[in-house]
Amino acid sequence: MIYLDNAATTLIKPPQVIDAVTEAMRSMGNAGRGAHGSSLSASRVIYDARCKAAELFGCARPDHVAFTGNATEALNIAINGLFAPGDHVISTDLEHNSVLRPLYRLESEGVISLDFVPADRRGNIDYGGFDRLLRPETRAVVCTHASNLTGNVLDLARIGRFTRQHGLLLVADASQTAGCLPIDMEKMGVDVLCFTGHKGLMGPQGTGGLCVREGVQIRPWKVGGSGVQSYSCTQPPEYPTRLEAGTLNGHGLAGLGAAMEFLLQTGVETVHAHEQALMRRFYEGVRDVDGVTVYGDFTASDRAAIVSLNIRDCDSGEISDALAEEHAIATRPGAHCAPRMHRALGTVEQGAVRFSFSYYNTEDEADAAVRAVRQLAAETAC
Amino acid sequence: MIYLDNAATTLIKPPQVIDAVTEAMRSMGNAGRGAHGSSLSASRVIYDARCKAAELFGCARPDHVAFTGNATEALNIAINGLFAPGDHVISTDLEHNSVLRPLYRLESEGVISLDFVPADRRGNIDYGGFDRLLRPETRAVVCTHASNLTGNVLDLARIGRFTRQHGLLLVADASQTAGCLPIDMEKMGVDVLCFTGHKGLMGPQGTGGLCVREGVQIRPWKVGGSGVQSYSCTQPPEYPTRLEAGTLNGHGLAGLGAAMEFLLQTGVETVHAHEQALMRRFYEGVRDVDGVTVYGDFTASDRAAIVSLNIRDCDSGEISDALAEEHAIATRPGAHCAPRMHRALGTVEQGAVRFSFSYYNTEDEADAAVRAVRQLAAETAC
Repeated sequence: MIYLDNAATTLIKPPQVIDAVTEAMRSMGNAGRGAHGSSLSASRVIYDARCKAAELFGCARPDHVAFTGNATEALNIAINGLFAPGDHVISTDLEHNSVLRPLYRLESEGVISLDFVPADRRGNIDYGGFDRLLRPETRAVVCTHASNLTGNVLDLARIGRFTRQHGLLLVADASQTAGCLPIDMEKMGVDVLCFTGHKGLMGPQGTGGLCVREGVQIRPWKVGGSGVQSYSCTQPPEYPTRLEAGTLNGHGLAGLGAAMEFLLQTGVETVHAHEQALMRRFYEGVRDVDGVTVYGDFTASDRAAIVSLNIRDCDSGEISDALAEEHAIATRPGAHCAPRMHRALGTVEQGAVRFSFSYYNTEDEADAAVRAVRQLAAETAC
Repeated sequence: MIYLDNAATTLIKPPQVIDAVTEAMRSMGNAGRGAHGSSLSASRVIYDARCKAAELFGCARPDHVAFTGNATEALNIAINGLFAPGDHVISTDLEHNSVLRPLYRLESEGVISLDFVPADRRGNIDYGGFDRLLRPETRAVVCTHASNLTGNVLDLARIGRFTRQHGLLLVADASQTAGCLPIDMEKMGVDVLCFTGHKGLMGPQGTGGLCVREGVQIRPWKVGGSGVQSYSCTQPPEYPTRLEAGTLNGHGLAGLGAAMEFLLQTGVETVHAHEQALMRRFYEGVRDVDGVTVYGDFTASDRAAIVSLNIRDCDSGEISDALAEEHAIATRPGAHCAPRMHRALGTVEQGAVRFSFSYYNTEDEADAAVRAVRQLAAETAC
């Protein structure tokens, strides 16, 4: 099978990731819950993963990297832990439900008011929209780094200048970019960076986290055992314990640490260049095919390695099934948990077939996908 | 090293657990996020794990098993999702901070009022305490199945009769018993059973969940992408999606499924008998040693395979360090995230050294631990 569903989860992991998880499952105790060797080594493995995440994302303090089970948990922690009644939040049409639903819930509870910078039919926003939506009570911009549907990237550095200028927080969802695009949260002005481990970072499922800029106070969300300050009725205030309750996914984090080590050694720029080349190659092969509509902006200087398309008015699920069954190519069809983006693109009913590339895909695979799309486009012409 | 810290996490897993995780990391897509083979097989692996959990815990509906990253997350979901302003909740002195801190937070926010059935110096409660604390506004009992400090078991079936009689909910924390003690939530009258995967179930870290009795409505806590109903502004109301947002720990759940399969094949009763025998053997070997104080009730008909003790007035951390360094025995000292239990036992300052046994421990290991305790007790006599 040719796996082109890497924006959902990367299927092929660096071999050392699997080795690290296997080794951890054979030897790891509970981090922070004892002082014998296997507990201490678990603590070291996890602290090492914090350091690597801090290095990868430009987070000044490794102890401000808190681990979660996925990006959704990280976003829930940030969104539920930062705002006070009366706050106004600005987001965008590019967002995934992992951003939208926590925000909508706070809005429906009357805690925050909420506005969205709209996207056009190419999936782009007008950055002037942030200025136009700014109010005295605006507290933050919460937005993705790249659309999981179109691959369009938001210019976080530009948004960061806006948020810094107005004393706002910038919470960024790096689900589609961590490991794939260079990120420096300090330079970009990101206050909270939420990431998942199993996509571009090529780590295990069940891992993710958030990097918090020093001085940003997120209220604890999940509370419970912390291994320290056991007699306090509340979660300890220090990061990362403040945002981590219960036993961490030490086995998974061992793998995530190995994955991030691989990325640091290989270089995110190298990964990025490879993925971009495949994405461009595929795009160039399908863009002018009769009956094919590609979504998103491919003129931008940077984007995620995602190409979403439809063939005529065919249901995206049927095309994706045909790709899987007739061409052994794995893609994702339908609605991509990004309702506002589908509305902007006009693909609410049809959905879209998403091809997403990883470091382990090859030119041959991209070419095979081009041939498959061409064949399906020809077959559906009548 | 002799690993006797299984109440923190089981270090030795059935080999098929590691095999299942490894295989999943080589082949698994994102469950519920596509219709190609690797996505569908991920969905099947996870649904299979739901079925095994339902079978293991007597949950009538596999789709009412929701997976989380650990028991703490499951308890936060249940505690934050069940109560309304004005509700009264009864808990006990045996609880871990994973129960206490979510309850304390709701109490401090003025949402619930809270009472605790007290424990005596042996760590036992008077079951009449539930009746005495009952009020018209009482909504639930939230309690552990077994103390992580003393190993004392609470009679869930008895508490379940009380909660059913009075129309209350029973939320049980099975962190120390899932996989070690037989559990049948329907027969016991448990409405929500919260469990972790990495302790008695012998699965990977980063796994856990909650089994919800049909008809019990827990409000969504973490919200976000669900793979279904993408255009809804709220989390879908159906279990398990209602309580699961974002990508599940599919790799870990593959391992948890294999672990539960091992337990179903082996029989929880067999595991229980083995662990009980080791715990009793160790207890009999240390109970009368001069200078040794053992906590908890060993006359009860059932208990978790935990023996916590102190040697004279020695700091529990120093004893645990000596066990690790001089005898290569891993235990856990200090406060065990169970502040009310330590107060009841009178061990707030000293903490306690906890020995906890698993299916993979042997009689020789229990005997070695007895010899080590005797030697340390003799060395500290002066």
